[in-house]
Amino acid sequence: MTAEPVVEELDQDTCLELLGTREVGRVAVARGSGPPHIVPVNYTLLRGSVVFRSAPGTKLRELVKEPVAFEADSWDSATRTGWSVVVEGLAYEASDREMEVEDIELDSFAERQNSRWVRLVPTVVTGRRIVRPSS
Amino acid sequence: MTAEPVVEELDQDTCLELLGTREVGRVAVARGSGPPHIVPVNYTLLRGSVVFRSAPGTKLRELVKEPVAFEADSWDSATRTGWSVVVEGLAYEASDREMEVEDIELDSFAERQNSRWVRLVPTVVTGRRIVRPSS
Repeated sequence: MTAEPVVEELDQDTCLELLGTREVGRVAVARGSGPPHIVPVNYTLLRGSVVFRSAPGTKLRELVKEPVAFEADSWDSATRTGWSVVVEGLAYEASDREMEVEDIELDSFAERQNSRWVRLVPTVVTGRRIVRPSS
Repeated sequence: MTAEPVVEELDQDTCLELLGTREVGRVAVARGSGPPHIVPVNYTLLRGSVVFRSAPGTKLRELVKEPVAFEADSWDSATRTGWSVVVEGLAYEASDREMEVEDIELDSFAERQNSRWVRLVPTVVTGRRIVRPSS
């Protein structure tokens, strides 16, 4: 029998450590009176900030104008455990030069369409993990 | 060598079919002038709508008040392919009786905290798939 789930709040170091184990997350940004815009991105971490690529155009302009939420997670259906981390903050379009100096390489799955760099500087990092202690 | 990626727009039937293969998605809802609130949920499909559980309280009240976006996806790091589906719509708190009549069973990983039913009725369903045709 599966033990009762326990939901743990994660500290920031644990959140960043877990984010470092994944490569796809989702970015959500408000959009007027409609539902938020939510889109998956390939990402990497850069000293506590989240870096991803975006296509030029409307989405990018939205991303750098409004507060952004980023989420990544990992789930195990068999054990019904997993974690989710949310990074809230402000994003800006980073230059190729900045990424070069930072020695960042990041190919998104949809390579050629995503030519711009976005760097999300966190204001709040939160995370939760569902565990099932052996009973 | 990996073939160039192709990004396909998916029709609604394909989107719903793919959603049926997953059990965790993320719900995003606007929250004043701050970033959207984004939270993972266990979900199931009910005749084209998305059903999930939520804890009573603030998040639930936000969900049923504002337009909601729901996202689920699946990625394969080895082939760098995958898909993402976004459902936008309006959510309401469904009664236990409605779910009973509909014969819906759904346990969330964090069972006891999520005692309320939410049903998201889609207004827009969109999806994209990244494939790599053999070159």
